[in-house]
Amino acid sequence: MRVLLTFAYKGTNYHGFAIQKNQITVQQTIQNALEKIFKSKIEIFASGRTDAGVHALAQTAHFDVETNMPVCNFKQVLNNVLPKDIRVISAKQVSSTFHARFSAVKKTYRYVVCNQKDNNPILADVVFECNCLLDMKKMKKAAKHLIGQHNFKSFCAADTKKESYVRKIDYIKIFKKQNYIMFDVCGNGFLHNMVRIIVGTLLEVGMGKIPPLNIVHILNSQNRANAGRTAHSEGLYLKNVEYK
Amino acid sequence: MRVLLTFAYKGTNYHGFAIQKNQITVQQTIQNALEKIFKSKIEIFASGRTDAGVHALAQTAHFDVETNMPVCNFKQVLNNVLPKDIRVISAKQVSSTFHARFSAVKKTYRYVVCNQKDNNPILADVVFECNCLLDMKKMKKAAKHLIGQHNFKSFCAADTKKESYVRKIDYIKIFKKQNYIMFDVCGNGFLHNMVRIIVGTLLEVGMGKIPPLNIVHILNSQNRANAGRTAHSEGLYLKNVEYK
Repeated sequence: MRVLLTFAYKGTNYHGFAIQKNQITVQQTIQNALEKIFKSKIEIFASGRTDAGVHALAQTAHFDVETNMPVCNFKQVLNNVLPKDIRVISAKQVSSTFHARFSAVKKTYRYVVCNQKDNNPILADVVFECNCLLDMKKMKKAAKHLIGQHNFKSFCAADTKKESYVRKIDYIKIFKKQNYIMFDVCGNGFLHNMVRIIVGTLLEVGMGKIPPLNIVHILNSQNRANAGRTAHSEGLYLKNVEYK
Repeated sequence: MRVLLTFAYKGTNYHGFAIQKNQITVQQTIQNALEKIFKSKIEIFASGRTDAGVHALAQTAHFDVETNMPVCNFKQVLNNVLPKDIRVISAKQVSSTFHARFSAVKKTYRYVVCNQKDNNPILADVVFECNCLLDMKKMKKAAKHLIGQHNFKSFCAADTKKESYVRKIDYIKIFKKQNYIMFDVCGNGFLHNMVRIIVGTLLEVGMGKIPPLNIVHILNSQNRANAGRTAHSEGLYLKNVEYK
């Protein structure tokens, strides 16, 4: 049967999601757990990769397995084997044509900025600390220019070669929760580092380094050098993946 | 001059506070930072130790230094050198008779239990996850028996030899914040593992394994074996240290 796993992880102790030789990755850790449980090599196919240090609140991946174990038991059995920083939220059977990546229609990322005078060491690896005064109005104004379908080459890691840099962003919600500023970015697909470059650029808008209207020129230039810095990985969460 | 530092840390990546040979400790890390800044070996004297994995929201330590640097600059200079998981909150000059440990009159610890159906991997090393149903009323009832001056030998790590096991607890506040249960324990001094054994025992009361009134018998027995398990280190925070 084909199974869709939904799971959360803290990315701090992993070299990203995707398997790499001689590195501890989230994918390898889950595959090792599945092999231990089902006594056979199982490859999982995720909705997409996340970089080193990036977290997930609800990443998805599918895999195929022959077993008599009811799927309702998978969650608990997997969580008993997995380390504490990876937790399965749900496991359900899906049709054999379902694909965690190709069937996905939307993804939402959340970027968490801790915006206070003093940094909090307790959350040092799960939020990005920014002590600057940030103008929420300016950031929201700038973000509006990114909504819709655009060529996002300016917001893609410079070394990435893609057939198309056109993606569609449904919304960017920027809101405060106590001392935290959240950036929720929802779209039909994301280029490498796209959310981190968008947030890094919006933070520079918030600091007054980039005027909000300049976002239009940055977009149109299709040149990564014109956008802001790539925001650090520790503030980024894959929040959820939507299917039809 | 004598300086009192107040600082927070995430204990996950340290072998506790106190210096140990060939181990990375909070004390060693701060002393290394001071040596780098002031170009001389400086020993710091903390309000007390914390075990491996235990965090601090406001630990205190004093040290002596000869310098022309104004004390108002210490915080920033130290934070520039220290790793992100140790943050100085304040630095102030104190009298030469002040001692961070011996001048302390009260300490408060906080223990954080995440009490929900599914564990949260993002906070795996900064809260203790307990998925059991916990009876708040029973835990509060049991905690009342610990308030005041008692011989706490039953709530002290079994291998600890002390002249006196008598300590005074001012209050134990148990309260909910969303899915978290906080245990704030304030007293004039604490034995080794005392807060963790108190919380571990109260959790067993909350689960219905120990009747609240049994706390009296556990106290009177002066036998560690009669109390509950030592709660894990990751949920414990030194919250603050009070001076006259």
